[in-house]
Amino acid sequence: MDLNARFQALISDMKLEGRYRTFIELERIAGAFPTALWHAPDGRQRRVTVWCSNDYLGMGQNPEVLAAMHHSLDLSGAGTGGTRNISGTNRQHVALEAALADLHDKESALIFTSGWISNLAALGTLGRVLPGCAIFSDALNHNSMIEGIRRSGAERFIFRHNDAAHLDELMSQVAPDRPKIVAFESVYSMDGDIAPIATLCDVADKHGAITYLDEVHAVGLYGARGAGVAERDGVAHRLTLIEGTLAKAFGVMGGYVAGPALIMDVIRSMADSFIFTTSLCPHLAAGALAAVQHVASHPEERAAQARNVAKLRGLLQQAGIPAMDSPSHILPVMVGDAHLCKRTSDLLLAEHNIYVQPINYPTVPRGTERLRITATPFHTEAHMRALVDALATIRRDLGWMPGRAA
Amino acid sequence: MDLNARFQALISDMKLEGRYRTFIELERIAGAFPTALWHAPDGRQRRVTVWCSNDYLGMGQNPEVLAAMHHSLDLSGAGTGGTRNISGTNRQHVALEAALADLHDKESALIFTSGWISNLAALGTLGRVLPGCAIFSDALNHNSMIEGIRRSGAERFIFRHNDAAHLDELMSQVAPDRPKIVAFESVYSMDGDIAPIATLCDVADKHGAITYLDEVHAVGLYGARGAGVAERDGVAHRLTLIEGTLAKAFGVMGGYVAGPALIMDVIRSMADSFIFTTSLCPHLAAGALAAVQHVASHPEERAAQARNVAKLRGLLQQAGIPAMDSPSHILPVMVGDAHLCKRTSDLLLAEHNIYVQPINYPTVPRGTERLRITATPFHTEAHMRALVDALATIRRDLGWMPGRAA
Repeated sequence: MDLNARFQALISDMKLEGRYRTFIELERIAGAFPTALWHAPDGRQRRVTVWCSNDYLGMGQNPEVLAAMHHSLDLSGAGTGGTRNISGTNRQHVALEAALADLHDKESALIFTSGWISNLAALGTLGRVLPGCAIFSDALNHNSMIEGIRRSGAERFIFRHNDAAHLDELMSQVAPDRPKIVAFESVYSMDGDIAPIATLCDVADKHGAITYLDEVHAVGLYGARGAGVAERDGVAHRLTLIEGTLAKAFGVMGGYVAGPALIMDVIRSMADSFIFTTSLCPHLAAGALAAVQHVASHPEERAAQARNVAKLRGLLQQAGIPAMDSPSHILPVMVGDAHLCKRTSDLLLAEHNIYVQPINYPTVPRGTERLRITATPFHTEAHMRALVDALATIRRDLGWMPGRAA
Repeated sequence: MDLNARFQALISDMKLEGRYRTFIELERIAGAFPTALWHAPDGRQRRVTVWCSNDYLGMGQNPEVLAAMHHSLDLSGAGTGGTRNISGTNRQHVALEAALADLHDKESALIFTSGWISNLAALGTLGRVLPGCAIFSDALNHNSMIEGIRRSGAERFIFRHNDAAHLDELMSQVAPDRPKIVAFESVYSMDGDIAPIATLCDVADKHGAITYLDEVHAVGLYGARGAGVAERDGVAHRLTLIEGTLAKAFGVMGGYVAGPALIMDVIRSMADSFIFTTSLCPHLAAGALAAVQHVASHPEERAAQARNVAKLRGLLQQAGIPAMDSPSHILPVMVGDAHLCKRTSDLLLAEHNIYVQPINYPTVPRGTERLRITATPFHTEAHMRALVDALATIRRDLGWMPGRAA
């Protein structure tokens, strides 16, 4: 086989379908978020407004977070030089894990180098060590949960998105004595909808299942202390395990799982992807701890974000832009075609100094290509009006359909 | 099923077998490496000498690395707030990838949040997108390579460790037109032996295979610029792909793969574990770039490390301690029993202020439990003598066997 021809064909196919990804080279500017410097392919640099970041609260430039990181770098240096087991457990990890357990009102927490790995490690391990385990997975679960379930080797049942009745139907077909896990998210990243957590927990309880909630797009943003939608809804105690990220509203990087100490001990002891990897740099844990503490004591920043999201949604809809009526902070604007979506993004950047990455397959299903817009407390009304005006102009010029929008 | 009883049984089994892992809580002290503060479970703190870190050159405290990280934190803040595709590609990533491609004399490089993910993403993707692919894997390959190969779904053939004849035998049984990948490491982490790279490449070439070399324990330490054993042996051009880490000799965190631009483009475009994860913090990339540059221009630090390894090996062997005659910087001291190995480590820490983590199953096969000692340029002769004396005392008191040592 001509391997190069095969590789070339794969790339060509992506280009033909309009889903070949071009990375936009940014230079973040601490203190100026959401403004960043765009390093264009022609070598020029321009200031652009970023409208697609998951640094939802701008914690990536928060002075307390950065001070904690500088301080820890001075104290402890850069990397740990080891896996958690072999010289890589540091005071900063232990402190962060205690704070995350407390945040979610769980006995224990475990941090990972990414949220992706958190899901792979936790679901991959639990499904593997429980003989005959059945995992019930929401149809729109994130890739990392799907990979974890696949890796576990457990039998997988996919319930229709946010459909508790379908979950109950599927669970009823599985022998009562088999171990069961129900895995779902709180805020779904691409549509911005929110799970009926209590109702899904009712079904899980009825069948004696472990409940596993991914709150990566919710931690920092919902609940009195920013612990997520489960905290907001008063149902955190009904989840066996809550998974979160340090890389979005907390502004740093890494992921974690919080839950019963015994289950954390099993994951810690048996997850290959945890055991065989160098631990997170201590100063990242220190920065994340500062972020968790800051967010917990500054609910007004979450409120400001929510106000900005509502204001922008209103402005978009007034201008006839098909912004979905999501109940969360995520504002999807449906385009419904990969090429049009990419072209819209290109024009926003080239002609309006606005950066919104097109979201194409495989991140969303084909035909639902979209712009996924995230407003933060740092986006001003002027930023919003510039975005709405630019989108209205481009939409008129390119003539895209409202798609399946609200 | 009583799930708690099942979890409890898993933990009890590990404890009975002596392979339950207790993480030692350290506080690294920038500027004092290999000395660190041990936070003992009783709340006391003591200074200990670390003898099991993979921060092989002490780059985790290198002033140039730390200065680059501080500078980048000031400029660009903490996290990126996005995947590489969605606002998460930064100037610092692009610069580091160019430097890594140059270091390994390849067209292109791609960075990941860990070396574990590098292997999962690269091998997992290549084996999946090449129809009928056969992957030939060294019997002692790292867990992350095994996971990548498993994830790829490709047919796997395991050749005896470092055995080119067996590789040839296995490859000869596979149809000539099937795509083939030969995957192996240069320095094997637990035994410290080194692959016959040229000979394995001869076999791979004969069968028209892609060659994939994991150099995570070699980058920074071997070759004129610290590119690894392939550079030292003058065979880097014979490897299609070289995988490395930023978390060991380069002192930070993250991993990478370097190779042909077309293959990098395929991995970048199709690896779920790359696509769906927040990118490395920009300041980590900046720190790693400073480390790569420092290491390339300071061969005397590699030489100092090699001298210290040789000196320590001599001292250990003179004292009758079964230190293996490995051809690399890794000094395994065989104990051969999980409980004795753990007990030796406990005594080193409690009575001698020396930290060497016991290496037990699943990191090494049962019956080959060991201490894995790593000497750096920062370990003094006094450190060495203290280690040798302590080990001699403990070994006499506990009476362990020489195991399969040299």
